[in-house]
Amino acid sequence: MTHTETATVITPEALLEHWQGHRRLTRKTIEAFPEDKLFTHSIGGMRPFAAMITEFLDMAVPGLTGVVTGKWQRAEDMPHYAKKGLSATKQELLQQWDEATKEIDRLWQQIPPERFMQTDKAFGRWEGTIYFFILYWIDNEIHHRGQAYVYLRSLGIEPPAFWERS
Amino acid sequence: MTHTETATVITPEALLEHWQGHRRLTRKTIEAFPEDKLFTHSIGGMRPFAAMITEFLDMAVPGLTGVVTGKWQRAEDMPHYAKKGLSATKQELLQQWDEATKEIDRLWQQIPPERFMQTDKAFGRWEGTIYFFILYWIDNEIHHRGQAYVYLRSLGIEPPAFWERS
Repeated sequence: MTHTETATVITPEALLEHWQGHRRLTRKTIEAFPEDKLFTHSIGGMRPFAAMITEFLDMAVPGLTGVVTGKWQRAEDMPHYAKKGLSATKQELLQQWDEATKEIDRLWQQIPPERFMQTDKAFGRWEGTIYFFILYWIDNEIHHRGQAYVYLRSLGIEPPAFWERS
Repeated sequence: MTHTETATVITPEALLEHWQGHRRLTRKTIEAFPEDKLFTHSIGGMRPFAAMITEFLDMAVPGLTGVVTGKWQRAEDMPHYAKKGLSATKQELLQQWDEATKEIDRLWQQIPPERFMQTDKAFGRWEGTIYFFILYWIDNEIHHRGQAYVYLRSLGIEPPAFWERS
């Protein structure tokens, strides 16, 4: 076994860039949807993509706030979020997305370096390590965005290239 | 800026466990498919899930071999892989999956700790950092498995829980 606890697999900066790269791809995926289909299109009884996007937003900034402060609040209990309610148009959804992008960048800089390997109880419910929560939020976005690719294909629309993150 | 290049976001062991956890979920997703649908079911002209699984297998062990040795060979050029050809049954696919699981565990132990942050040209084609390649292989699996969830739902089959990785 050659690995040690101190081997650097990825730096905090690189993980932030990795996430924001995925979020740029998700933004393109939102843009690719026709306005109505974003809120209505479904296969096999699954949620429309807009509902999945709302889930991503409910995890990202509220989650990172918990990472930084150790206090976990659900999105609907956060004053800033609660007053906005659910986005009703594609433009509103994109605007919420862009606000979250800036807020993620801002909060990320406040994560103490030792925090990533600490354990906590995310949103007061899930026991785990901070890096796992962050990867979970990223993975959950990749997972559901992949489903949105099928929605787009079923509508005859070509999704953005998966490897393109700029 | 409080972060340093040496902050440990995730250890090599934890990243391996993260990947293998996703691979266990992918295995359950393969199992959830009826034999014929695994090789034939499609939405919007997309590939059947078996073809996506083959892509995951073509990235994982051949890719990690490149990470460990610095020599990148495509799956079809690797003697061990080439002679097997494409799996024709669900059982064969699951067997290939399980062999790759062991091989990933074995190769992972040979990755020098400093390797994750080095740059290389994966499969002689893609310039990047080793950690990025590994995350790409994991993300690509999450992305397409998410699509397989839509395939399953469209067949009236409930996919395995996304958060269950045991």
